[in-house]
Amino acid sequence: MTHHRPLYGREDLRRLIEPQTIAVVGASSTEGSFGRRTLENLAHFGGTVYGINPKYSDILGYQTFPSLSDLPETPDCVIVGVGQKLAESVIKEAAELGIGGAILYASGYREAGGADGEAAQQRLLDTTQRAGLRLAGPNCVGLVNANSGAGMNFMTDCGEMIQGDAGRISLVSQSGALGYALLQGLHRGLSFSKFLACGNSVDIDVADYVSYLAEDPDTSTIVCLLEGISDGGRFIEAIRKAGRAGKPVIVYKAANGEASSRAALSHTGTLAGSADAYRAAFKRAGAILVEDFEALMEVAAFFDRNSEGPTGEGVGIMATSGGAGVICADKAEENGLLLPPLADATTSVLNDVVPGFGSLANPADLTAEVLKNVETFKTSLTAFCDDPAFGAVVVPLTFVHEATTGVRARYLAEVAAESTTPLAAVWMNEWLEGPGSQDLDGDASVAIFRSPARCMWTIRQWMDWHARTDWSPLAESAADRGRESPAAGLLAALPAGTTALTESAAKKIVASYGIRVPGERAVHGPDDAAAAAEAMGFPLVLKVVSPDILHKSEVGGVRVGLNSAEEVREAISTMAARLVSEAPNARIEGYSLQTMAGEGPEILLGARFDPVFGPLILLGSGGVWVEILRDVKVYLTPMDRATARAAVAEMTLAGVLNGARGEDAYDIDAIADAIVAFSRLARDLDGVATEVELNPVRITRDRGPVAVDALMVLTAEQEHTRQNQTDAASADVEAEGVVQWANA
Amino acid sequence: MTHHRPLYGREDLRRLIEPQTIAVVGASSTEGSFGRRTLENLAHFGGTVYGINPKYSDILGYQTFPSLSDLPETPDCVIVGVGQKLAESVIKEAAELGIGGAILYASGYREAGGADGEAAQQRLLDTTQRAGLRLAGPNCVGLVNANSGAGMNFMTDCGEMIQGDAGRISLVSQSGALGYALLQGLHRGLSFSKFLACGNSVDIDVADYVSYLAEDPDTSTIVCLLEGISDGGRFIEAIRKAGRAGKPVIVYKAANGEASSRAALSHTGTLAGSADAYRAAFKRAGAILVEDFEALMEVAAFFDRNSEGPTGEGVGIMATSGGAGVICADKAEENGLLLPPLADATTSVLNDVVPGFGSLANPADLTAEVLKNVETFKTSLTAFCDDPAFGAVVVPLTFVHEATTGVRARYLAEVAAESTTPLAAVWMNEWLEGPGSQDLDGDASVAIFRSPARCMWTIRQWMDWHARTDWSPLAESAADRGRESPAAGLLAALPAGTTALTESAAKKIVASYGIRVPGERAVHGPDDAAAAAEAMGFPLVLKVVSPDILHKSEVGGVRVGLNSAEEVREAISTMAARLVSEAPNARIEGYSLQTMAGEGPEILLGARFDPVFGPLILLGSGGVWVEILRDVKVYLTPMDRATARAAVAEMTLAGVLNGARGEDAYDIDAIADAIVAFSRLARDLDGVATEVELNPVRITRDRGPVAVDALMVLTAEQEHTRQNQTDAASADVEAEGVVQWANA
Repeated sequence: MTHHRPLYGREDLRRLIEPQTIAVVGASSTEGSFGRRTLENLAHFGGTVYGINPKYSDILGYQTFPSLSDLPETPDCVIVGVGQKLAESVIKEAAELGIGGAILYASGYREAGGADGEAAQQRLLDTTQRAGLRLAGPNCVGLVNANSGAGMNFMTDCGEMIQGDAGRISLVSQSGALGYALLQGLHRGLSFSKFLACGNSVDIDVADYVSYLAEDPDTSTIVCLLEGISDGGRFIEAIRKAGRAGKPVIVYKAANGEASSRAALSHTGTLAGSADAYRAAFKRAGAILVEDFEALMEVAAFFDRNSEGPTGEGVGIMATSGGAGVICADKAEENGLLLPPLADATTSVLNDVVPGFGSLANPADLTAEVLKNVETFKTSLTAFCDDPAFGAVVVPLTFVHEATTGVRARYLAEVAAESTTPLAAVWMNEWLEGPGSQDLDGDASVAIFRSPARCMWTIRQWMDWHARTDWSPLAESAADRGRESPAAGLLAALPAGTTALTESAAKKIVASYGIRVPGERAVHGPDDAAAAAEAMGFPLVLKVVSPDILHKSEVGGVRVGLNSAEEVREAISTMAARLVSEAPNARIEGYSLQTMAGEGPEILLGARFDPVFGPLILLGSGGVWVEILRDVKVYLTPMDRATARAAVAEMTLAGVLNGARGEDAYDIDAIADAIVAFSRLARDLDGVATEVELNPVRITRDRGPVAVDALMVLTAEQEHTRQNQTDAASADVEAEGVVQWANA
Repeated sequence: MTHHRPLYGREDLRRLIEPQTIAVVGASSTEGSFGRRTLENLAHFGGTVYGINPKYSDILGYQTFPSLSDLPETPDCVIVGVGQKLAESVIKEAAELGIGGAILYASGYREAGGADGEAAQQRLLDTTQRAGLRLAGPNCVGLVNANSGAGMNFMTDCGEMIQGDAGRISLVSQSGALGYALLQGLHRGLSFSKFLACGNSVDIDVADYVSYLAEDPDTSTIVCLLEGISDGGRFIEAIRKAGRAGKPVIVYKAANGEASSRAALSHTGTLAGSADAYRAAFKRAGAILVEDFEALMEVAAFFDRNSEGPTGEGVGIMATSGGAGVICADKAEENGLLLPPLADATTSVLNDVVPGFGSLANPADLTAEVLKNVETFKTSLTAFCDDPAFGAVVVPLTFVHEATTGVRARYLAEVAAESTTPLAAVWMNEWLEGPGSQDLDGDASVAIFRSPARCMWTIRQWMDWHARTDWSPLAESAADRGRESPAAGLLAALPAGTTALTESAAKKIVASYGIRVPGERAVHGPDDAAAAAEAMGFPLVLKVVSPDILHKSEVGGVRVGLNSAEEVREAISTMAARLVSEAPNARIEGYSLQTMAGEGPEILLGARFDPVFGPLILLGSGGVWVEILRDVKVYLTPMDRATARAAVAEMTLAGVLNGARGEDAYDIDAIADAIVAFSRLARDLDGVATEVELNPVRITRDRGPVAVDALMVLTAEQEHTRQNQTDAASADVEAEGVVQWANA
C-alpha cells in the first residue's frame, strides 16, 4: 500500500473543475450529438464558452474557432467531444497551450481490452504528466459544477437540471450511468455542488477528486460510488483528509462478489476476500460504507444537514400514528439508539396540544388530531427540538394530502432551520413523491428518509462519525519505520526451493518478532527423543517434520500429552510406522518435541496480502472453531496497541478473554502486543509470502498468547530469487536441515 | 396456542366486504365529516347506498332514512359513522334487523384504557356474537373493495384513488394510518383488490381477514401489517389456509422492541423474546416476513405478478450499465441466487444487437448503445426471457428520459405479459417517480423494485416459498394427541412449595420423556458416597443438591473427574466445607454422584412459554458457548422428527454434528428424537412451568445426547394448586426427599 503519487489538491484541479473559460472541441448544432448536448448543458454557465469547429464561426450563439490555438485566450478547461482518433492531437495541443484541465469523453482505450487502446491510454498519460494538464477520463461522461452552473458533460438535459440552488453534497462516481441516475434526483428536489466522474482515471482518480472536495469550500459532504481502486493508500489518505476538514465520505462499493473457488492452504486464504479488505479499509479510514446503492443520497443528506454533530445522545420520535412511532422505535433500538423519556418541559407543552388518547412517551403519538390544527404540529415539534435529551428528532409521516402535508413539510423545514437539533422526516407513504415531499427533499435544513430503518442507521453512523477523533494519516510509528526486519535473515538462510515452510521454520520466524512459541527440540528416533524429553520435562507433544505434510493431524503426525520418556519412545515409533502407510511419499525430515502450552481459549492470527491494501491481519476464533464459526475479522496494517485492543474487543471470544462467568480476564495487552508483532511480521513479508497463519494461538494464563502452530508459504518469485542469491550457501543450510531451526 | 374460535371464511364476511347494499349511519353533507367522506368514497360503488339521518331525506343525492328500521330493504352492510354514544344502539338495531356486517369508526373503547370503554367493547362483542353480525372495528378506518369500487371508509379522497383497475393484492392492516399510507401508492400506479382494517378487532381479527382473502377469487397475494396478535394458532392456520390456496402472505410486524430488563433464572429466559416467537411462527406457518415497512408492496407485487413459481433456478441480469449489472449481481450472490451463463441461443441473439464493448456474460452489459435503437432492447429482453436457465430476469434501469424510458417500460410490460419467465425492473434512479416508472408500477405483469437488494431478496423468498409443500394445519400427530403426560404424576408428587426443582427432580421428569440423563445416586456424607461410588464405577461427578443453588459451579458445588472412592471422600468433605462459606444460607439437601457423560459437543435445549404462541423450543450451542455465541434459535411446538432435523441443520454446530474434519457424523436422528421428546415435555408443562432448560445436553458417540444438567421452574399458581391437592401426602414425600428421585 504505497503512495504512488501525492494526491491532487484544489490548486491542481481548480482550472478543470472551477473554470472561468471553457472550450468545447467538437462543438456542434446536430441534435443529440455530444457537442450539442455539451453546449446546451453550458447554457447557464456564468463564464466564457468557446466552440472549436473548423467549419463554423458561431454555433448556437457561441463564438467558434477552428482550433484551440486560434482562441483569443487560453481557456482553463477544454471539453474534448471528438472521437478517439482526433482526441490525441487535441490533448497534445491543449498540453502545449498550457490549458489547465481537459475532459475526454471518447472511449476505446484500456476499457476496450486491446493493445491499441492500452497504448493510446499510455500516451495520454505521458502527455498529461509531462505538461501538468489535468485530465478527467477518457471514457468519461463529464463533470458538473452546480455552483457555477456548468454542465461540463453530455448528459441529456443536465444544464436544465442544475439550475436550482446548488447544494453542498458532491458526488464522485466511477460509473457515469449510475452517477447520472443519482444526479437525476434533482428532478424531485435534491441538490448538489459537484458531480465528478472518473472514466478510466488515467490521470485523476477517485482519490484525487475526494482530495479536491476536501478543500472545496462549497462541499460539506462527499458521496463516492466505487467499483474498485488500485491504490488503497491514496484513497484512505483522501478520506482522512476529508475527515480533517470535517467532511464525511459516504461510500458505496459495487463488485463485492467473491470467486467461489479460491484455493489456498490456510484458512486465512479462504476466510476473507476482497470485499472484506475494502470493508476493513473504509472502517479504518473513517468512511461511511452504505450497503445499498439507493441509500447513498439519503445518508449524505442527513450528514450534510447536520454537520455540527449531535448535542445529545438520545433520539426523540414524534409521530401522529401509533404504528409509525413504534416502527421507528423498533429501528432505533436495532441500531442501538437511546429513546429517553420526554423532559418535563416537553410534556408540559404537549399536554396543551395532544388530546387525552395520545401517548406522551417516546415515541410520542400525537394522533391525527394534531393534524386538524396544524399549528399545534409546529408547537409540538419545537418542544421536541428544545428537549435537551434529544441529539436528533425523527418525525414519521404516514398518509399525506395536498392541503395539510405541504404545511407540515414547511413547518419541519422552518423548525429545522431554527434549531441546532437535527430533524429528520420519515416518509412512510407509497406515494413516493406525494405532496410535501418535494419541500423536504429540497430543503437545506431538514433531512428526509423513505425508510425508517435507514433513518435510524444513519443517525447511528452520524453519531459515531462525529465521535471519531483520529484523522491523522495512516502510517507506521517513527520507531516502526526505522526497525529492521527480523525475518529477512531467517528467510535468506532457508534451504533453496522452499515455498511451504516447516512448522519449525515458520515458528522460528514468528518467535523472532517476540511472539511466544512452545519450547521445541528436533529429534530423529526413539533414543534422542527420549533424551531430549528428559531434558525438556513433561508433558510434551510430538510432531512430524515434513515439508510435504501441512496438516499433520490428519495423517497421525501429532501426539499430545506425552508424560514420560517411555511414552515419547513409544510415540515416535508408532508415528513413524503409521506415516509409512498414511503419507508414503512425504519426505520425513525428522520429528519435533514441543512443550505443551497449557489450557486456554484459542484464537487465529493470519495475514493476507492484498493487491490494493497491502498486508491485512485476520483475527478470530481459532482451533476447531475456525471452521464452525468462521468469525474472522480483517484489519489493515500497521496495527498499534490501540487498534489491536479494539480488534480484540470485537472478537466473538471477547467475553471469554475479558473473564466470563466471574473468572479473571486474560492479559489483553499481551494479546494486543502479539497482534502488533504479527502486524510487523506481515508487513515485512509483503511481497515475500502468500500466506501466514498462526492457528491456534492459545491464550494461556501464565505465559500469555502462545503460537501452538504456524504455517507460512512463500511466493514462487521469492523462491526463485532466493535460489539465485543463496546457491553458494545452500549446501551448508541443507546439511544442517531442520535441526538448525529446532535447536536454536 | 388454542383455537379459541374457528376462522371466519368468505361466507361469514361476504356481506360485510362484498355488499350489494350499504347503509351509512351519520350520513352528512358537512365538509370533512366522516359521514360526508364516506358517501364521497362510495360515489363509484356499483350497488345501492342509503343514507341514515333523521333530519334529511336526501344527502348528496342518496336516498336517506331516519333509521335502519325505516329502510325499504335490509342492507348487507352498515357503516356506522356516529360517535360512541349513539353507536351502541345502532349496532343493536343492525343486529336485530339481520344486517350482515357493520363497520364501526367510533373510538373510545378498549384503546381508551378506561373501564367504561372496556365495558362498552364487551357489550359490542356480546351483541355481534349473539346475532351473527360481523363487525369491523370499533376504532376502525374502514374497508376498501376496489373490485366493486366501494370505499367503505372515511379516508380523504379514497373513492377517487380506487377508480383505476383493481389489482390482485389485498391488504390487512392493524394500523389505519399505515394501511392508508400504503394504499396511497395508488397515486403512483399501484393497484389493490381489498383493504381491510382491523381497528380494535372486537369480532373480526387479522386472522379472519386473511382467512377470507384466502377464499377471495379476486385476491392473489395478501399483505399483512401487524402490531401484535393474541391468538397465534388462528393466525398460523389462516396463513396455512392461504398457502393451500396458493396465496402468499407477506407480513410486516411492528413492535419488536424487547424489555431490556427481563429477569429470568435460565438462559432461555433471556435469549429469546416476543419478536423471536413471531419470527419462529411466521417461518413455521410459511409467511414471508419483511424486515422493512417500505418493502411490503414491492415484495407483494413480485409475488402477485409471478404466482406460478419459477421455471428455472438461476437469475439473468440484463443491464445497460456495467455498474448497475454488477450491483445486481452482488445482491444476487448475497441472497444465494445463481447467475448461470447465457445459453448459446441467447448469446447468438445478443451478438447481433450488442456492440463489441458490451459484455455477454451474466450480468450482461448491453451498454447505452442498445438504448439508441430501443427495438434492440426488446429483442434482447425476449432472448433473456426465453433462456431456459433463468427462473427470473432482472433489468436495472439507470438514467431515465421522457423519450426513451417510457418505451422501455412498455416493452418490459409487453415481454412480461407474453413470457412465463418473471421479469423485474430495478429502478436505480433518485427521480423516484421519473418517466416510465408509472407504467411499471401500474402494470399487471412486470414487477418494479427501487432497491437491487430487495429485488434479489424477494426472488430468493419467492423461490423458497414456491418450493414449500407442507401447508397442512399445524397440529400434533394422532399418536401424540392421545398420549399421557409422564410429567403429571411426578409433578404432583413434588414436595409442597416447590418452584425451582432440584437438578435431580428435574432430570427425573426429563428422563420420563425418554431423554437420557447420567446415572445418579443421592449421597449425604463421605462414607455412603464412597460406597455408592464403588458401586457406580468411575469416573464420577459430585454435585451439591440444594433448592437454593441453581448455579452450582459458581459456589464450588461441582467436582468432575473423580477416579476413586478416596477422591470422592475427599471431594465431598471439601465441598461441604466450602459451601459453608460460599453459600451460607442455602439449604443443603445432600449430594448427587453422577456418572460422566463422555466427550462431545454440547447443545442447549430450552422451553419458553409464550402467551401468543404457546410452548416454544430454544435450540443452540450449549455449555460455555451459550453466553459467548448466543446463537439460540426458536421453534414452535409441536416438533416432529422432520422439523427437529431441520432445526439441527440450522445450528452453528451443524458442521461439528455432521462430522467436521473428516470425523464421523454424530447420530442426528437421536438428537432429533431428543428434541421431539423435549417438545412433548414443553407442551405438557404449558401453564405449569415458567422455565425449562437442559444445558448442556452433551452429544456423545456411544450414548447419543445426554442431559448433563437440567433446570425447571414452576409457576407460582402451580405451586398453590399442588399445595392444596397434596397436603395429605406431602409428609411422605418430604420424608423420602431427594433420595427418592436420585435412586429411582
